[in-house]
Amino acid sequence: MKKSALIIGRQPLIEAIEAGRAIDKIFLHKNISGDAIPRIRQLARDRNIPVQMVPVEKLNGFTRLNHQGVVAVAAVVQYTDLQQIIDHVVGEGQVPLFVMLDGVTDIRNIGAIARTAVCCGAQAIVIPDKGVGALNEETMKSSAGALDKIYISRVNSLAQAVDTLHLNGIRVVCSEMKASKKVYETNFAAPCCIIMGSEERGVQSFLRKASDEHFSIPIAGNFDSFNVSVAAGIILYEAMKQRM
Amino acid sequence: MKKSALIIGRQPLIEAIEAGRAIDKIFLHKNISGDAIPRIRQLARDRNIPVQMVPVEKLNGFTRLNHQGVVAVAAVVQYTDLQQIIDHVVGEGQVPLFVMLDGVTDIRNIGAIARTAVCCGAQAIVIPDKGVGALNEETMKSSAGALDKIYISRVNSLAQAVDTLHLNGIRVVCSEMKASKKVYETNFAAPCCIIMGSEERGVQSFLRKASDEHFSIPIAGNFDSFNVSVAAGIILYEAMKQRM
Repeated sequence: MKKSALIIGRQPLIEAIEAGRAIDKIFLHKNISGDAIPRIRQLARDRNIPVQMVPVEKLNGFTRLNHQGVVAVAAVVQYTDLQQIIDHVVGEGQVPLFVMLDGVTDIRNIGAIARTAVCCGAQAIVIPDKGVGALNEETMKSSAGALDKIYISRVNSLAQAVDTLHLNGIRVVCSEMKASKKVYETNFAAPCCIIMGSEERGVQSFLRKASDEHFSIPIAGNFDSFNVSVAAGIILYEAMKQRM
Repeated sequence: MKKSALIIGRQPLIEAIEAGRAIDKIFLHKNISGDAIPRIRQLARDRNIPVQMVPVEKLNGFTRLNHQGVVAVAAVVQYTDLQQIIDHVVGEGQVPLFVMLDGVTDIRNIGAIARTAVCCGAQAIVIPDKGVGALNEETMKSSAGALDKIYISRVNSLAQAVDTLHLNGIRVVCSEMKASKKVYETNFAAPCCIIMGSEERGVQSFLRKASDEHFSIPIAGNFDSFNVSVAAGIILYEAMKQRM
């Protein structure tokens, strides 16, 4: 981790957040106290920044400077509020095509999916604030810079994000191996958000249930599943074809 | 590298090759001499095994055993002669769908492409004996085991491999960014081999010229290219759809 990506100390962190700087994560000393701390916690809540309580050794490992029990990791991408993204995309006269990542932890897969999303004309990626690989410099490299060309919304709850999408008339769709409808029979021309699940357990049950449509990618050979970034490529390619 | 993957010494190597064991690479001491050496060189030529001349320190780095100037790395996959593969596939009543890798060096991309190839019903992957990432245990892991479920042909010359394909009535196709024909307008239902080029320089000029058809993958967004394993996924998915 580059030192420049760290924000060290209480007041520097508050100022950085208030100035609009995107933060990936805040580390607080587990016994921390003081006037600034409730303010930091409030800012973190407002902006969906994960906070982790850690022993002092962890903080000392980040820096030899006087950290006052507070170290934060600055984000390499800028996060945008989901409703703001929708308003902007619709305002520009575009038809929303979003991708939601549910538990995709491999940052090379995340980078490849971001790159594919940009190529296929998607406008946004929605990620949870926990349980997804970090959007760090390596992810940026894997995306060949594409993470800078697409809106990223980091949300505290994917269920709430689905509600927001539904309230804005955006359908939520996901792949399910058992679905009889094929990916090429699915309507991606209307506003939609595609949920991609982790390679290990697929899309979580509550998100599958909240989805408006399920489809499968056909498999011709003697194998059970595609790599998640390849699957995303096939789905987004179908969506792009329908929109061309 | 696991010790078990190494073959150490002159006679053990000759016996391993004659017993049909697949070898990825042979390292010989740069000043080596002796009766067994012409025999080893001949076997390597016959089976397209790359030979590299190295200083003794390199060999000592592999093993503390008495290597006699000879260390070889056993392959984790079994290689099959291209003509044998074609004969077998056609004999089984299948329509050949092959993938040729031209300079794809990232072993994670190779693993993902192998997995996609198996999912989409391709029967073989053709690789050159130089300039492509190693098919080692990490590649196998990236392929989720798919490398064990598809024929692999390692050839000394991709140009000669194209000749072999043509003599057997197998068309050779490749993607080219400037091609006006789109991937979904291309005929993959007939016997064909898809060439995938490296991310940096694409398919080499002599292979592009030898190709029977060129196509492009459309791009809707503000970005110039897909990741090579995603591109392979889109092309192989189109091929699979046409063959279903």
